[in-house]
Amino acid sequence: MSTQDLRIGIAGLGTVGIGVVRIVREHGRLIAARTGRPVVITAVSARDPSKMRDADLSDYAWEADPVALATRDDVDLLVEVIGGHEGPARLATEAAIAAGKDVVTANKALLAHHGQGLALAAEARGCVIRFEAAVAGGIPVIKTLTEGLAANRLHRVMGVMNGTCNYILTRMQSAGLPYATVFEEARQLGYLEADPALDVGGIDAGHKLSLLAAIAFGTQVSFDAVELEGIGAISIDDITLAADMGYRIKLLGVAQMTGRGLEQRMTPCLVPADSPLGQLQGGTNMVVLEGDTAGQIVLRGAGAGQGPTASAVMADVIDIARGLRLPTFGQPATTLAVPVGAKSATPAAWYLRMTLLDKPGALAKIATCLGEAGVSIDQMRQYGHQGVNAPVLIVTHKATRDDIDHALGRFIGTGVLVGEPVALRIEAV
Amino acid sequence: MSTQDLRIGIAGLGTVGIGVVRIVREHGRLIAARTGRPVVITAVSARDPSKMRDADLSDYAWEADPVALATRDDVDLLVEVIGGHEGPARLATEAAIAAGKDVVTANKALLAHHGQGLALAAEARGCVIRFEAAVAGGIPVIKTLTEGLAANRLHRVMGVMNGTCNYILTRMQSAGLPYATVFEEARQLGYLEADPALDVGGIDAGHKLSLLAAIAFGTQVSFDAVELEGIGAISIDDITLAADMGYRIKLLGVAQMTGRGLEQRMTPCLVPADSPLGQLQGGTNMVVLEGDTAGQIVLRGAGAGQGPTASAVMADVIDIARGLRLPTFGQPATTLAVPVGAKSATPAAWYLRMTLLDKPGALAKIATCLGEAGVSIDQMRQYGHQGVNAPVLIVTHKATRDDIDHALGRFIGTGVLVGEPVALRIEAV
Repeated sequence: MSTQDLRIGIAGLGTVGIGVVRIVREHGRLIAARTGRPVVITAVSARDPSKMRDADLSDYAWEADPVALATRDDVDLLVEVIGGHEGPARLATEAAIAAGKDVVTANKALLAHHGQGLALAAEARGCVIRFEAAVAGGIPVIKTLTEGLAANRLHRVMGVMNGTCNYILTRMQSAGLPYATVFEEARQLGYLEADPALDVGGIDAGHKLSLLAAIAFGTQVSFDAVELEGIGAISIDDITLAADMGYRIKLLGVAQMTGRGLEQRMTPCLVPADSPLGQLQGGTNMVVLEGDTAGQIVLRGAGAGQGPTASAVMADVIDIARGLRLPTFGQPATTLAVPVGAKSATPAAWYLRMTLLDKPGALAKIATCLGEAGVSIDQMRQYGHQGVNAPVLIVTHKATRDDIDHALGRFIGTGVLVGEPVALRIEAV
Repeated sequence: MSTQDLRIGIAGLGTVGIGVVRIVREHGRLIAARTGRPVVITAVSARDPSKMRDADLSDYAWEADPVALATRDDVDLLVEVIGGHEGPARLATEAAIAAGKDVVTANKALLAHHGQGLALAAEARGCVIRFEAAVAGGIPVIKTLTEGLAANRLHRVMGVMNGTCNYILTRMQSAGLPYATVFEEARQLGYLEADPALDVGGIDAGHKLSLLAAIAFGTQVSFDAVELEGIGAISIDDITLAADMGYRIKLLGVAQMTGRGLEQRMTPCLVPADSPLGQLQGGTNMVVLEGDTAGQIVLRGAGAGQGPTASAVMADVIDIARGLRLPTFGQPATTLAVPVGAKSATPAAWYLRMTLLDKPGALAKIATCLGEAGVSIDQMRQYGHQGVNAPVLIVTHKATRDDIDHALGRFIGTGVLVGEPVALRIEAV
C-alpha cells in the first residue's frame, strides 16, 4: 500500500460530484486515518464552469473536457459521475483506462451496456473499475456480494432498487391516489429522471439488476436479457386488491441461475405485506442476497441522494487507496461466462386482474382459457359491477410466465375482455 | 497479489471449523476463480482426534496443539475457531502473530478482552487479524462498517446480535410462555452456550458491540465499559404490556459517541413494533449503522449456525487471498483513542413496570419519587388487582439513566413496592 496521496479527478459536478467534494473536504483527516493514505482532489470537470455550486472548488484545476481530466498526469483515479451510457461518460472512462488510471463510477447505464468491454480493457491495463454507487446508492451491496459472500454460490439476488417507483407505489397506497397523480407529484418533487421511462419503465433498476447478476453468477453483464416491465399499468385497484390479500406491489428485480439458464426480471410483483420487502416504504432501497452457506442477507438503506451516493463513491476510492484491487465483476472478465438467457420459467403464483363485459358465461370463458393453458385457479373474486363492466381478480396456482402468456393470448379470442388484463407475479420472498 | 496457494490451518473442529472445511472442499474452484489464488487447508487441530466429524480430514496434517499448528511452516494463515478469551485460542493467536502469520477468527470474546494488544502485535509484525464471523454470523457487518462506510463519521451503531435472546423473547410473545419455560426450551434445542449467562446475560452480544464501537468511533475496544443487562428479568407481562403500546422488547446494543464520551449499552429495550428491529423474529440478527453521509444502513441475516459463520470466516480468508490488508479495527491500532467511557446519559423515554401494595396513596408515593428525581410521566396504567398487589405501568417522558436510577432508589424508601421494579429504555430507532 502506497503512502503517497491518492489524487482523484472528478468528472461531473452534479449532486453526486459535489457530494464527493464535500466528503473529501469535511472528512479528509478521518479518511487519511482510516486509509493510511491521504485522498486529494486535483482536478474537476463539468460542462458549465460558471454555474453556482454548493462547494468551494477553487483549489482544483478545471478541465472543460472530461477526457482531458481523465488523462491528466496529476490524476491517479477518475471519479466518473457524469452519467449516461454514451458520450462524455464513456469517452472519459475509456480514456482513463487507456491511460492506466483506476475508475470509480456511479454509472449503472454505462456498465450495463459496456461493462464487459470496459472490464476487459481495465484488466488488460491493470486498472480497476469500481461501481458501488451504481447500485442501491449508499447500501454497500456490490461489496457485500463481491466480497462478503465470496465463499457462497448464489441462489438468487432480489431487490427494490428504484426509489422513485417505490415512492410512487407506496404513496398510491397510503394516500389512495391514482398512478397519474402520484407520478405528477414525483415529477414536481424532482424524483424522476429527465426521461421518466428510466424510472417507471424499470430500465434504471434493470441496469442495476444486470450488474448484480454478473457478479452473483460469474456471467457477462447482459442487460438486454433482463425481462423489463414498468409500473405504469398498476392501478390503485391493484394496490388495494393486493393489500386485501396480504400483499404489497413492488417493482422487484430477481436474478437467479436455473437449469435453463440465467433468469433476470425487473417487473412489478406481489410480495407478502409482512416480509422485509413488503414493509419497505418510500424511496428506501432493499437488496436480498441468497447464498448457499450464508443464507439470506437483507440490506436496506437510502438508494439515492447526495450523501448516500457520494458515500458509496468514496468507499470505492478508499478501497483503492487501501490497496484493494478487484476485477470489475469479482472475477477476471476473461473468465466470465456468456450467460444463457432464459425467459423466466421459474413457476410462481400469479395475480390476474381484468375487466369483463357483463355477459352470461364471460367468467366461464376466462376460466376455460386458463384451464386450456394449463393454469389452475387458486382464488377468484368478482367485484360489484360498475355499469356493464365486472372487475375480476384471479389468483392462480403456480404457473410459468409462458403458461400465463398463453392464457392471456386466449383471453383475446373470447371477446369478453374490456381493456388489457394485468398479470403480476407473486414472488416467494 | 500472490498467485501461490494460500495455505490455511484450522484450529478448532467444532461446528464452525467443519463448516470451513466443507466450504473449502465444495467451493474450491469457485473461490479460486474469484480470488485468483487457490485457498488450501494444510493442517487442522482439535482436542480429540478420534471424534467423528462430518467432513473428510484425511488430506490434512493433524496437530494436537493449536500453537504447533499456528507456527507450522506450511501454514500462512491461522483460522482460529476454538473460542474462549484465554487458553488455547489466545495462545494460538499470539503464536501465529509472533510467527508473522495472518489470523482469521470467529472469537468475539478474545478480541473484546485482548483486541488492542493483539492488534498492536499484529500490526507491528505486518500481519492482519480479521473477524467478520465474530459479529452477527453471516452478515458482513465488519466489512460494511470498516469499508462500506469508511467515508462516514458514524453517529450510532445498534443491533440485535444474540439470536438466542431474540428467539427467547419472540417465542415468549408468540406462545405466551414465561421466560423460564422458553429458556429451558432453548437449552434443550442447543441454542444456549455452555454458560448461559454469555447469552441471556448479554455478555456475548456485549462483546460484539464493543468490537463494532471500536471500528465505528476509532477507539480502543473497551468491553468493560459496556453497560450490560440481561433478559432474565423480562416477564411475559412486560412483553404483553409493551405489545399493547405498539412496542417489542429486544436485547438491543447501542453504541454512540456523545459530548460526554462513548456510550455503549447492551440492554433490553422497547422498540416500535413496526420498525425493522421490532419486526425481527427468532434467531435472526440485525445491525443498524448510522453514518453522517450514507444515512441509516440496516443489515439482516443469520447470526449463527455452521453455514453463515463459516461463510464469514471464508470471506475474510478470501479478502486476504485477494491482497486486502486492513488494520484490525479499520485504522492503525496505535492511532485508536482511549475512549472516555460515559455512563449512558442520552435521554430516552422509559418503561417502568412494578407491583405496588394495595394501600391508599401507594401510587401517589411513586409519582412523587419520580417528580423528585426530575422524571415526568407520559402514561400511567394500573391493572386489575391480583390479591393485594397492583401491577403498575408507567411510561416516562425523556429522562437519563441517572434520573431513572435516582427515582428507583427513592422507590425503596416508600415501602409500597413488591419485588423489584423493571426499567426498560424505549430506544428511538
